[in-house]
Amino acid sequence: MSYTSLVEHFEQLHHLQHLGAICGWDQATMMPPGGNEARAEALGTLAVLCHRQLQDDRLPDWFAAAGEEALTPEQGVSLHEMRRAWRDANMLPADLVRARSLAGSRCEHAWRSLRPANDWAGFLPLFEEVLNLSRQAAAARADTLGLSRYDSLLEQYEPGMRGAELDRLFGGLRGWLPDLIRQVQDKQRHEQVLVPEGPFPTAQQKALGLEVMTMLGFDFNHGRLDVSVHPFCGGVSEDVRLTTRYDEQDVTQALMGIIHETGHARYEQGLPAAWCRLPVGQARSMGVHESQSLFFEMQLARHPAFLARLAPLLERHFGTQPAFAPDNLARLYTRVEPGFIRVDADEVSYPAHIMLRYEIERDLIEGRMEARELPERWDQLMRQYLGLSTQGNDRDGCLQDIHWTDGSFGYFPSYTLGAIYAAQQAAAMERQLGPLARLIEADLPAIFGWLQQHIWQEASLQDTAGLLTAATGQALDPAPFRSHLEQRYLA
Amino acid sequence: MSYTSLVEHFEQLHHLQHLGAICGWDQATMMPPGGNEARAEALGTLAVLCHRQLQDDRLPDWFAAAGEEALTPEQGVSLHEMRRAWRDANMLPADLVRARSLAGSRCEHAWRSLRPANDWAGFLPLFEEVLNLSRQAAAARADTLGLSRYDSLLEQYEPGMRGAELDRLFGGLRGWLPDLIRQVQDKQRHEQVLVPEGPFPTAQQKALGLEVMTMLGFDFNHGRLDVSVHPFCGGVSEDVRLTTRYDEQDVTQALMGIIHETGHARYEQGLPAAWCRLPVGQARSMGVHESQSLFFEMQLARHPAFLARLAPLLERHFGTQPAFAPDNLARLYTRVEPGFIRVDADEVSYPAHIMLRYEIERDLIEGRMEARELPERWDQLMRQYLGLSTQGNDRDGCLQDIHWTDGSFGYFPSYTLGAIYAAQQAAAMERQLGPLARLIEADLPAIFGWLQQHIWQEASLQDTAGLLTAATGQALDPAPFRSHLEQRYLA
Ligand SMILES: [Zn+2]
Ligand SMILES: [Zn+2]
Repeated sequence: MSYTSLVEHFEQLHHLQHLGAICGWDQATMMPPGGNEARAEALGTLAVLCHRQLQDDRLPDWFAAAGEEALTPEQGVSLHEMRRAWRDANMLPADLVRARSLAGSRCEHAWRSLRPANDWAGFLPLFEEVLNLSRQAAAARADTLGLSRYDSLLEQYEPGMRGAELDRLFGGLRGWLPDLIRQVQDKQRHEQVLVPEGPFPTAQQKALGLEVMTMLGFDFNHGRLDVSVHPFCGGVSEDVRLTTRYDEQDVTQALMGIIHETGHARYEQGLPAAWCRLPVGQARSMGVHESQSLFFEMQLARHPAFLARLAPLLERHFGTQPAFAPDNLARLYTRVEPGFIRVDADEVSYPAHIMLRYEIERDLIEGRMEARELPERWDQLMRQYLGLSTQGNDRDGCLQDIHWTDGSFGYFPSYTLGAIYAAQQAAAMERQLGPLARLIEADLPAIFGWLQQHIWQEASLQDTAGLLTAATGQALDPAPFRSHLEQRYLA
Repeated sequence: MSYTSLVEHFEQLHHLQHLGAICGWDQATMMPPGGNEARAEALGTLAVLCHRQLQDDRLPDWFAAAGEEALTPEQGVSLHEMRRAWRDANMLPADLVRARSLAGSRCEHAWRSLRPANDWAGFLPLFEEVLNLSRQAAAARADTLGLSRYDSLLEQYEPGMRGAELDRLFGGLRGWLPDLIRQVQDKQRHEQVLVPEGPFPTAQQKALGLEVMTMLGFDFNHGRLDVSVHPFCGGVSEDVRLTTRYDEQDVTQALMGIIHETGHARYEQGLPAAWCRLPVGQARSMGVHESQSLFFEMQLARHPAFLARLAPLLERHFGTQPAFAPDNLARLYTRVEPGFIRVDADEVSYPAHIMLRYEIERDLIEGRMEARELPERWDQLMRQYLGLSTQGNDRDGCLQDIHWTDGSFGYFPSYTLGAIYAAQQAAAMERQLGPLARLIEADLPAIFGWLQQHIWQEASLQDTAGLLTAATGQALDPAPFRSHLEQRYLA
C-alpha cells in the first residue's frame, strides 16, 4: 500500500529531525564554543538529508496512488499534511537550503557574543547574508504558492494566515491598544508595588521552577529543564527540552519564562502518540503553539488565583517577605511599563513589540527596506509605539531577538495571534467549565483536560480555523483578548 | 577527480556520525528515561543511513578511478582507509545493522537499571538477542575476510590483530602474572596505607577534576566533562565529551577515571585537523586509544612524581589529612588487591580481568558457549584467576560492563594491548627524553609533545605495527610492560 510506504518514509524523516532537535538543543545549552563549526556543518548536512527525504522521486507516485486507496478520514488528513510538507520542501533548491542553514547557524552563533557587545557592525554582514538567502527563499516560495513573498513565509508558521488579515487585526489593535496602555498606566500610577529582594540563588530558582512545572503537569520522564541564553522549548514530543535563563537578582522573570515554556511543552507532550512521528501529529502552527504558552503564562499564571498558589512556594524557597504577598504579586505581574525588551514586556504592551517586528520583517522580505536601515527603523517605531529610543543601544533594540539570526522571518506575528487564540480559548473554557478562578483553586487538571481534548490531541488533524471554531464555537476574533485585558487591567 | 568525490562523500558520513556521537552522549548523560524508545529508533535510522552512505553504488567506481589518479602518499593512505571502511560496511546486510543497533540500544538501556537490581534473568533475553545478532554479524564478516569469527570482530577494533597472537601474548602473561601478583601482595602485606576520609562533595570533586584536566592539557574550548553511569570519552574530535561518575565517599576513583578519559580525549583533540573528517584522520585502533588513556592513568598519574603534584591539589580542595601525603598516595594508588570490578582493578591484576573476558567472548562468538552459561563461567574463571566468587552477585560479575550490552565483542583485549603499547611508549620516551620523573616534575609539555608527534598526529596514517615501531623503535613486545610492573611494584 502506498500510504504505508509514505508512513515509513515520513517516520524516517521524523527520526532525522529528532537527531537535529537534540543536537540543536545541545548547541544552545551544552556545546563548548570550539565545537560550533563542526556542529554547523553536521546540521547543514542533516538539513540537506531531510530535504532530500522530502524530494524523493517516489513521493509523487505514492501520493497519487495513496489518494486512490481506502483510507480512514484521519489517514486522509495525514496524507494531506504529508503532501503539504512535501510541497513546502520542493519549493527550494537543495543548495539554497544548505546555504541558509549554514549562514543561519553562523549568524546565530556569532549573535551570542555580538549582542552583549552591542556590536551591530559585526552582526550586519552575517545578517545580510541571512536576509539575502531568506529573500531568495521567499521569492521561490511565492512563485509556487501564488502568494506575496511575505505571505509565503508566513504560510510556514501559520498556514492559512495572510498579511492582509494581519493588517486588519493589527490595524484594529492600533485603534484601542495605545489608549488602553495609557489608561492602565494612569490607573497604576499611584499603586504601591514591592519588588522582591534578592539575591535568589540559581539552584533555588531551578528547584522552584521544577516544582511549578510539576504542578503544571510537565512529565519529567519525557523531558528536562536546562539553561540557554534565549529560552526555548525544543527536543521531540517524547523528550521535550525546556530552557530558561536565571538572573540571581530577579526571580520573577525566570519563573514566568519557565511557565511559558511549560505551556509549549505540555502541548508537545500531549500530542497524540499514535500520530507523533507523522506531519499530522505535529503541533498545528506556531500561533497555536504560542496560544498554549500564553494560556499558561497569561491566562493561567498571572491570574490572581494562581498567584495566590505561587506565593507560599516562593516563601518556602526564599523566605517570607512582603513582596511575596498574593496581592502584591498580582500588582507586580500585571504592572504595565513599556520597555525595550520583548521577552520582558508586560501583557498589554507586548502586542506593540510584535506590530513593530511585523512591519519591519514584512518590509525587509518584500524588499522595501535594507538590513542596514534596521537600527534606525527600529528606533523610529519604538519611539512611535512605546515612546522609547534605542539609538546606539542595539543590544536592547534590533539585536535582542534570536529569530531573524537564522532567517525565521514570518514567525513574530504568531506571538500576538497566540495571545488572541488563548483569550478565545479561556473565554470558551469559562463558558463550558465555569470561572477560571475556581478551576485554578480546586481543579487544575480540568483546565489541562480541556486543552488536552480540544487542542493538544487534535495536533494537525484540523486547520487552525477549524481547530479554533471547534474548540471555542467561534471563528478568529480579537474581542475576547480585548475584554480580557480590559477586565484584568482596568476593572 | 574521483578522490575529491570520495572526500566529499566521507565528510558527509562524518557529519552523520557527529550527530550520532552527540545524541549517543546525550542518551547516556542527559536524556530522561521516557525518551529512550524514540532515541533508539532515531539512532537506528541513522545507523542505516551511515551504512547506506558506505554502500553507495558509486563507491566501487570512484575507488577504481581514484587508484589511477596522481595522489600524494598521504592521500593514498587515506584512500586505503576509505576502502577499509567501505569493505567493513558492505559485509553486513542493512537489516542486520539496524536490528543490532536497536537490540543493542534496548539492552544497554535496560542494563542501566537491571545491573543495580542484580537482575540477570531480566537481562538474559535482551542479551541473547544481542549475542544472536552479533554471531550473525561475525559469521558474515568471517566469510568475507577469510578469518575466524572472533578474529573478524577483533579486526574492527584492532586491525591486524589475531586471536592466535592474543593467545600467545596472554599465554605469556599467564606464565608470570599470577606469580607477580602473589609477590606484590606479600611485599605489601605489612604496608600501612591510609584511605582518605570523606565525604568528598561532588561539586568539589568536579572542580578538582577540571583542574587536573587543565594541567593535562585538555582543551575546554573543544570539550566538556559530565556524568554517566559508565564513564566514556565520546563526541567528536572538535568537541570531545568526557564523562565520569562520582562517589562522595571516595575521591580516588573518580579522579583516576577523569585522568584516564583525559588520555583518550587528548588523543582525539590531537588528531590532525586536516584529516579529521576522513577515515585516515581517526584514531588508529582501540588498542592505541587505550594506550593513551593508560599512558595517562598508569605511566603518568600513578608515577610517584605525579602523585607528588596531585597531593597539594587534593589538600586545596578537601583540606589537609595524612592520607594526602605523597608517599601514602603512592602506596594507595599502587595497592594490589584482586577484586570484582574491572574498572576499579589495580594495574597488576587488571590483565586477569581481560584474560577472563577474552576467553568468554571468544567462546560466545565461536559458538562454544551460550549466553545462559555466562554467570557460571564468569564465576569459575574469577575463582581461577583472582580467587573470588561471583555466584549470585552478577551485578559485580558478568553484568558489570557496558561493552557486551550493545554487542561490542572483540573490544576487551584492547585494554591489555593498550597497557602493553603504553609501557613500550614510556620506555622509548625515557630513552629519548630522559627519566619520566624529571619530565613530570618540570616538563609535562615535553611528554604531551612526544605523544602528539608520535601517536596523536599520526592518526591512521600508518598501521598499528608501523606506528608502534616508528614511535618506539621496536615491534610489539610485552617485555617493557613486565619490567614496568616489576620495577614499580617489587623494587
Ligand atoms: Zn513561546
Ligand atoms: Zn579507556
